[in-house]
Amino acid sequence: MATKSKSTTTKETLQLRRLGIDTYHENVAYLHRECEVYRAEGFQALSKVKICANGRRILAVLNVVDDDSIVTPTDLGLSEEAFAKLGISEGHLVSIEHAEPPASMNAVRRKIAGERLTQEDFHHIISDITDTRYSKTEISAFLVATGQTDMDRDEVFYLSRAMLESGEQLDWNESLVVDKHCIGGIPGNRTSMLVVPMVAAHGMLIPKTSSRAITSPAGTADTMEVLADVELDIKKLHDIVRKHRACLAWGGKAELSPADDIMIAVERPLGIDSLGQMVASILSKKLAAGSTHLVIDIPVGPTAKVRRMGQAQRLRKLFEFVADQLGIYLEVIITDGRQPVGFGIGPVLEARDVMQVLQNSPKAPADLRQKALRLAGRVLEFDPDVRGGNGYAIARDILDSGRALDKMNAIISAQGEQSNKFELGQLTHEVLSPADGVVIEIDNLQMARIARFAGAPMDKGAGVDLFKKLGDKVEKGEPLYRIHAEFPSDFNFALTLCERDIGYLIGKEDQIPKAFVEF
Amino acid sequence: MATKSKSTTTKETLQLRRLGIDTYHENVAYLHRECEVYRAEGFQALSKVKICANGRRILAVLNVVDDDSIVTPTDLGLSEEAFAKLGISEGHLVSIEHAEPPASMNAVRRKIAGERLTQEDFHHIISDITDTRYSKTEISAFLVATGQTDMDRDEVFYLSRAMLESGEQLDWNESLVVDKHCIGGIPGNRTSMLVVPMVAAHGMLIPKTSSRAITSPAGTADTMEVLADVELDIKKLHDIVRKHRACLAWGGKAELSPADDIMIAVERPLGIDSLGQMVASILSKKLAAGSTHLVIDIPVGPTAKVRRMGQAQRLRKLFEFVADQLGIYLEVIITDGRQPVGFGIGPVLEARDVMQVLQNSPKAPADLRQKALRLAGRVLEFDPDVRGGNGYAIARDILDSGRALDKMNAIISAQGEQSNKFELGQLTHEVLSPADGVVIEIDNLQMARIARFAGAPMDKGAGVDLFKKLGDKVEKGEPLYRIHAEFPSDFNFALTLCERDIGYLIGKEDQIPKAFVEF
Repeated sequence: MATKSKSTTTKETLQLRRLGIDTYHENVAYLHRECEVYRAEGFQALSKVKICANGRRILAVLNVVDDDSIVTPTDLGLSEEAFAKLGISEGHLVSIEHAEPPASMNAVRRKIAGERLTQEDFHHIISDITDTRYSKTEISAFLVATGQTDMDRDEVFYLSRAMLESGEQLDWNESLVVDKHCIGGIPGNRTSMLVVPMVAAHGMLIPKTSSRAITSPAGTADTMEVLADVELDIKKLHDIVRKHRACLAWGGKAELSPADDIMIAVERPLGIDSLGQMVASILSKKLAAGSTHLVIDIPVGPTAKVRRMGQAQRLRKLFEFVADQLGIYLEVIITDGRQPVGFGIGPVLEARDVMQVLQNSPKAPADLRQKALRLAGRVLEFDPDVRGGNGYAIARDILDSGRALDKMNAIISAQGEQSNKFELGQLTHEVLSPADGVVIEIDNLQMARIARFAGAPMDKGAGVDLFKKLGDKVEKGEPLYRIHAEFPSDFNFALTLCERDIGYLIGKEDQIPKAFVEF
Repeated sequence: MATKSKSTTTKETLQLRRLGIDTYHENVAYLHRECEVYRAEGFQALSKVKICANGRRILAVLNVVDDDSIVTPTDLGLSEEAFAKLGISEGHLVSIEHAEPPASMNAVRRKIAGERLTQEDFHHIISDITDTRYSKTEISAFLVATGQTDMDRDEVFYLSRAMLESGEQLDWNESLVVDKHCIGGIPGNRTSMLVVPMVAAHGMLIPKTSSRAITSPAGTADTMEVLADVELDIKKLHDIVRKHRACLAWGGKAELSPADDIMIAVERPLGIDSLGQMVASILSKKLAAGSTHLVIDIPVGPTAKVRRMGQAQRLRKLFEFVADQLGIYLEVIITDGRQPVGFGIGPVLEARDVMQVLQNSPKAPADLRQKALRLAGRVLEFDPDVRGGNGYAIARDILDSGRALDKMNAIISAQGEQSNKFELGQLTHEVLSPADGVVIEIDNLQMARIARFAGAPMDKGAGVDLFKKLGDKVEKGEPLYRIHAEFPSDFNFALTLCERDIGYLIGKEDQIPKAFVEF
């Protein structure tokens, strides 16, 4: 090649600046429109740039800035997550380049065109997603392309394995490491905080790492945090598990299936939650956490994630197939998902329900107790010394004798008792029955939204306390539930939502939908 | 309902601030993490908020800010596009609310699940997209869900009509308003600037509104701007068209099919360009521009958008079906898309080629002249007084006689001659043939990328000047093309790209792929 005019051989450089902007799981770079080194608008339409410094490189979406107080024409700004990812200090010189679209987007395009993808395709896609090479629009394209109708069970297995391999994997050095997991969608369904102490009291290893809520009003980690510290480093986690056979910790500190976290941040707001993606997400996470035996809870009901028995059965088969391929022992239990479990929705309220069950309090919600016993019973039967069918009785004995409560208290003090005393939100509002009759429907989605709008899980004392459950008799004007909030703005959001739809239907006994399962 | 604690009845309010950040077709709101009125993180996971002020409201993606110099805890910042869209002045009090996901996302979810959508569904989706209720991830989901395999021809018609109705429609008050349009993908293919003056010289009405390049190195508007002003207000546009029977203006000032602009900003970087979306995009835009008769150019070639003849035929049928439903008279011409058209790629270079053809210069590229004559011939045959088959001869006569050049000069002076004198970029590099032989391939995509990286269309003098075309004999070391750039950083980007792949293949005569069409 011959160059007639002199080419500048040194790399153009800008000064790196960290911008205090949290762009939520997407790298964003900020370049001044008048930047003299690079033509900001030339990059923008192609949507992504590669930022290089000190041998490190990240991809980012480009925003063009017109305000010198945000970035100057000689700066390159990065959002907080992008800055952390690049890992170079402020003021360092950086260069930018046109980003190639991630090579694996070709596979996504083939999927859009209806092709079946190979194990290698999924590996490349997930590895690019883990390296944040995908923009949110590209992740959205992948999620839709692999949605419900378009992934066969082998592909779900490939996706699960690729996600598993994208992160760390815990190894507990035991042959029987148990866990339970619910596919979600049912508010108040805090059975893990009961199953874990029961199973550990029996001596089985159940190192439970849970997520925080993303779009729901409380995750197990949010609720456990009302009682104990949940952000444990990996060494402390191991020490606790070795001593107590269990923990109830937040899983975010260990990098388990990081691709899953990135995809969920796009998937949840979109409201697309395909069965294949759900199976891959759950199984990759559980296997990464070191589980060998797993009970999966699939609630079925008119406002649950799974609405019909046929769909639940298909999901069960898919779980079983992929688990077998991955080499994890799995049992699926289909449960009653017609209404929230327990009385409380929101961290403080749910922690109260859990502790009342452990304390064998007469005020304890019977449905939460029953469900936890059934699940714990099935987990206990993974123990080769427990005879099939005896798990439930063993679990009940552990709970009734107070051994589950003792184990819970031991776990709490090992993780560190919560030093903040979280109280119920002081802004309250009671929603009254509009008619005489019986409760014939409680909308899981609407109750979750009301609790969420009231401030849960961010404000631990916010949420909804249910006074009436399915089948309960009510009189007109009698309170159905109480909303708790800590902040006036959240309180108003929740009230406005209630005014549109209280989430309860009052009718006649025979209008109550039948449970698909006796549970 | 009974409220035990006093609810604050006044709306919480923040001060509106305009942030100088251009987020490229997406509304972004910036809320301080320590905002005392709203809990920033509570909103973030749900991804979108509704911003209300003075009876106006917009939806925006939320970014959380930790830096008081960007927004303070009592401010709400908006990106430039969001600020313009809300249309309220800085310092005004605004409130925010949880945004409902756009109702029409239910239809998108049904599409993902494999359902066929109705006319009403498409109407709602497009109207929500036009109102910027969709985030980019939601648009991506819609584009993928309606991609290639998943939209039947009725659905393409529904989508086209919904897009058409989303914006303004021009009315020229004549029964024969002609236009031509290429589906794109072929660099240097600047036939519109030849067809328009030829057809207008014949007296037909051809009010051409064109786009600027989004991901290509030049659009017709970018190239015409080298010669004349293209940003005309609607009154001036009408005056010029009435007097000269034509214009060559940028279409962005008229709000024609605005949903299309929003979707294209997501679609292009994703690299998904399904046939159904292409047809809907083109026909809605043309109908909105007031065309009654349209010639569509579908280039076919190994590196063109359409790679096989069968695909071109399917696309033709789809164009014909939807055009009939919409009531626009349409002719499809399948053309040779094996290589760039003309010599120049980039605004200044393409304007040079166009003017050489109009001036009947011996240096004019023969392929550009031939193609423009054929297209103009077909457009001329829309005239009821032109006998079928005679169009080409009439077009040639208009071009050879200089009447096309006269018409072009009249259009240029009516729109306003360009006051900036754009020059070819002074940083140049010649790419040499690696071997003796003949040119057997010129990669449209790679040549477009090299020109784009060199700075086109932002820098009008940037681009690529081809010396050799398909079938030309070359000796090793002989120049194949020259890169022109204005900025060192762009020049280096283009050179780096060339080093990886020069975009040319040299081989033997019999390796040249056959043209599917004689053109």
